[in-house]
Amino acid sequence: MGNGIDISERQFLQSHTPYKSLVGKYNRVLVVGGDEDKCRYVAQSYGFKDVVMPVDILRQVGSKIWPFNRYNQEELEKWGRTDLDINKPFDAVLVFCDPRDMGTDTQIVLDLLLSQNGQLGTRRANHEFSSKPAIPVHFSNNDLLWANNYSLPRFGQGAFRTMVQALYKESTKYELDCHIIGKPFHYTYQYADNLLKNWTKNGKDDLTVYMVGDNPASDIMGANNYGWKSMLVRTGVYRDEDRPNIVATPDYFFDNVLDAVNYAIDHNKSYII
Amino acid sequence: MGNGIDISERQFLQSHTPYKSLVGKYNRVLVVGGDEDKCRYVAQSYGFKDVVMPVDILRQVGSKIWPFNRYNQEELEKWGRTDLDINKPFDAVLVFCDPRDMGTDTQIVLDLLLSQNGQLGTRRANHEFSSKPAIPVHFSNNDLLWANNYSLPRFGQGAFRTMVQALYKESTKYELDCHIIGKPFHYTYQYADNLLKNWTKNGKDDLTVYMVGDNPASDIMGANNYGWKSMLVRTGVYRDEDRPNIVATPDYFFDNVLDAVNYAIDHNKSYII
Repeated sequence: MGNGIDISERQFLQSHTPYKSLVGKYNRVLVVGGDEDKCRYVAQSYGFKDVVMPVDILRQVGSKIWPFNRYNQEELEKWGRTDLDINKPFDAVLVFCDPRDMGTDTQIVLDLLLSQNGQLGTRRANHEFSSKPAIPVHFSNNDLLWANNYSLPRFGQGAFRTMVQALYKESTKYELDCHIIGKPFHYTYQYADNLLKNWTKNGKDDLTVYMVGDNPASDIMGANNYGWKSMLVRTGVYRDEDRPNIVATPDYFFDNVLDAVNYAIDHNKSYII
Repeated sequence: MGNGIDISERQFLQSHTPYKSLVGKYNRVLVVGGDEDKCRYVAQSYGFKDVVMPVDILRQVGSKIWPFNRYNQEELEKWGRTDLDINKPFDAVLVFCDPRDMGTDTQIVLDLLLSQNGQLGTRRANHEFSSKPAIPVHFSNNDLLWANNYSLPRFGQGAFRTMVQALYKESTKYELDCHIIGKPFHYTYQYADNLLKNWTKNGKDDLTVYMVGDNPASDIMGANNYGWKSMLVRTGVYRDEDRPNIVATPDYFFDNVLDAVNYAIDHNKSYII
């Protein structure tokens, strides 16, 4: 969210999505994204038992699976699993965060989506392809753009989703069915809403919730749809010149997060939890 | 082409395309793809005067332009230009070979296509977008797949083209107009045909040309369209189980390149040039 947020914080925020609910459903998962192999430990902390990352596959299968990969030997040895039985099929692809080595991640994700029942190194016959991939793919965040300290917003996980879907279509002629959680989808707001209600202890249903965000297409659209008050800040993806084409109009505009939070506090003094 | 061809040879084959004809047209070009900054020297050998690669931009602008880039400091210093005036606009994007750091290349290519007249760090207003990007983008090869020593074909430059077009559409709502040379397009075969005719010295027009290739969608389709004899080998992208869905049927099938070449020699002994 906006200028100045560092990548590790973004990764944390992105990763703490309701993937937990999938733990009982999938045994072996391909976990994609994030620095080093940090998302492996996030996935394991959710309860996933057999977590494989692209770096594990590269270490096991070798560079031939993606000759243009950008891992060196030291990184493969530091982050890559040694106990991987590559012949065991995968049950799902879970994208936790933005890919780092995007070429490697793209090739391996598509390999699994086009495979015979999640078995790496196999490929379905052309007549078996449909919109339903070999194994389900989940994305934890759909933002096309996010803002850092560069002068223009940068591509986010939504761009990776776009690329994966385009390659699936080019390979199979079908639109890829995929699961997307994160903003602006209802499920994510419901999850946060439940957390907030638990934190208030009394479990009251009449909370006024303010959503402060920099991205109209995710933060603001989701808040408006869910019935929260939406506050758009000017320190991130949104710029005032985008206003004529804004995809979701916020209840309030603010120059920065502090102004937004101060406004909410000032106007709700008797209700602060 | 096929199993066993090494990457540097592929890069050479891909790079020696008719980009030379664009030298007079463009001053500053973004050159994308290939190991290290090798394609810079290929572009310069064609006559391009101001060749910029993504690694130069990363070195100059810093990691903020793509925070997930996979270049280390040593590589930036070894391959990145130090004399780059970043405020001078770009005239075209030329993709020479498969990207190595795909995230970096994708972000920077899109930054230029969405810019105001090729000026890095700017972005057109939404109402200015159309299918025509800010500056032209050329791809030197359109193969979605190529074969190495992995059990299944790997994504090639055509996959990168697919990804760039998908992100352009997601960003602008328009289909991206791009220029593609390489197989199976006529221009590439004509270029090769002219070379062959020059090599025969007598410039005869009645050459029988055999095209040996592993990819029906590029090698074979192009040869059939151009009127050459086409020979499909089983050592690369094509597998016999693909035959029911083959997009271009060759004149001959062979197990490998040697068998194909021997056949052509045996049947044209009196014509060998």
